[in-house]
Amino acid sequence: MESYSFVKVFAPATVANVAAGFDVLGFALDNPGDIIELKRISERKVTIKAIHGDSGKLPLVADKNTASFAVSRFLSDIGEPFGVELVIHKRMPLKSGLGSSAASSVGAVFGANKMAGNPLSRKELIQYTMEAERVACGSAHADNTAPAILGGFVLIRSYDPLDVVKLPVPEGLACAVVHPHTEVNTGDARKILKKEISLTKAIRQWGNLAALVAALFMNDLELLSRSLQDVIAEPIRSLLIPGYERVKEAAMMAGALGCSISGSGPSVFALCGNLERAGAVGKSMVEAFDSIGLDSDLYVSRINVEGPRVIEEL
Amino acid sequence: MESYSFVKVFAPATVANVAAGFDVLGFALDNPGDIIELKRISERKVTIKAIHGDSGKLPLVADKNTASFAVSRFLSDIGEPFGVELVIHKRMPLKSGLGSSAASSVGAVFGANKMAGNPLSRKELIQYTMEAERVACGSAHADNTAPAILGGFVLIRSYDPLDVVKLPVPEGLACAVVHPHTEVNTGDARKILKKEISLTKAIRQWGNLAALVAALFMNDLELLSRSLQDVIAEPIRSLLIPGYERVKEAAMMAGALGCSISGSGPSVFALCGNLERAGAVGKSMVEAFDSIGLDSDLYVSRINVEGPRVIEEL
Repeated sequence: MESYSFVKVFAPATVANVAAGFDVLGFALDNPGDIIELKRISERKVTIKAIHGDSGKLPLVADKNTASFAVSRFLSDIGEPFGVELVIHKRMPLKSGLGSSAASSVGAVFGANKMAGNPLSRKELIQYTMEAERVACGSAHADNTAPAILGGFVLIRSYDPLDVVKLPVPEGLACAVVHPHTEVNTGDARKILKKEISLTKAIRQWGNLAALVAALFMNDLELLSRSLQDVIAEPIRSLLIPGYERVKEAAMMAGALGCSISGSGPSVFALCGNLERAGAVGKSMVEAFDSIGLDSDLYVSRINVEGPRVIEEL
Repeated sequence: MESYSFVKVFAPATVANVAAGFDVLGFALDNPGDIIELKRISERKVTIKAIHGDSGKLPLVADKNTASFAVSRFLSDIGEPFGVELVIHKRMPLKSGLGSSAASSVGAVFGANKMAGNPLSRKELIQYTMEAERVACGSAHADNTAPAILGGFVLIRSYDPLDVVKLPVPEGLACAVVHPHTEVNTGDARKILKKEISLTKAIRQWGNLAALVAALFMNDLELLSRSLQDVIAEPIRSLLIPGYERVKEAAMMAGALGCSISGSGPSVFALCGNLERAGAVGKSMVEAFDSIGLDSDLYVSRINVEGPRVIEEL
């Protein structure tokens, strides 16, 4: 068993919900992603030495930060006789619907597992990152952390017990994600959804989700395109994103397979058949936000299929 | 192009809904199934010469019977200069939740298409059998007719436009279907469902359905088993089936992967890893119905993967 005194990890941003997959589906991106540095220390504690790229917004207090929280629980469970000092490089916007908190906790716990000689599987690490999500947003969701740690498309069938299924990724599939400079509070985005939905709409939603899953297995981009519909959350949540209809129309006109809200927004994602198309689609989406006076950031990326990766280890 | 003056067809019974797949999923059985005989006649009309095995309950009037209705529309659309005389051998109980009306219309239109030299694809035939379902039960559903005509597991993503997806069948997968001698009116079974459902339950349902689809592609019977749950229709519709809980428990105790209501009932199906297991599971289910004084019929079958088949042609 090798052991390291320093590990540097890339951890992917994630798109949760994915149209019809509200609360049960997410996928990982190669861009953007956080960089997490872990330094082994002899004292059995987890501290955060520095966070870069967050404009000072994230807590440095270890039990309030998702990354250090997850690592603390992990080290305590496996009983390793060392601590970790973290440096977090935020490479994505906070509260943007891109799974920022999940990326940091996933990168940190993946790095700590590596440092300890990989005692746990990737699936076993999900529980620590889920608990960390509760610190960040009040509920222990896995729709960002599970795809962030496993890579690709990940389905969460059940939470009790946790049952996640990694789905295949059609070759070449790419994504444009545009983050408009406006803020959507995750809690608000959940509260405005109706607690009761019509059975008719629910049937449409699960028909589309089932077809979306089939399309991933069948490598059928036309079916994927027809399935990327959300009749439950998008019609309501899109009201919180200025210019949403215009941006979605721009994405579809530019040749996206489908376009919807990333997580609870405000970021908007568009799946595309290849990276070049994703670039053109993303540009159109940025222009559409621009046309209503809203600045935005564009990320163009392949689907990340491997999850986090070690960049450096000493 | 060959053409025939007589075609005899086997058409499979079907299990619609399949637990989490309410209104969007169904699969076909090798047993039971109807036998439909078609005789070419020179007059351009469709008549029913005889129906056997229905105890005189089905209409012989051509535009009120699903089989003749479907064939009439089909022949009219393709403009063939011949008519058909039908003999229908019902080999399954009526109003049992086994897609009896769908089997007859599917067998008839499949045979007529064969007689005409197969001008239409199987998928193209679905529309005629759907319209015939309206004659039988008031709404143009495809969750029995689509699997009956395509074979295997079939997902209906959308009705407008019709978009069906054939899913793979894990090797060896078998089914026990038990038909208790009690009647559930399809209309009543639909009416007692709530028009509004909780978002929380809907999310559980579509998580399970998405996992069920993944399990079929992954040939993962354990995942299939975990996914065969219905939190929407079964808790309500099962109240119309005497002894349902006991029968389901008997099926699971005997090693079924999952057990739920076939269509809108009263038949109950149990998916199993192989035919032998399905036999044992079915026997337990029959005994459970028997223990509350209810007679029942047992069908044990592999999943039908080919849809209808020609038995004889002259």
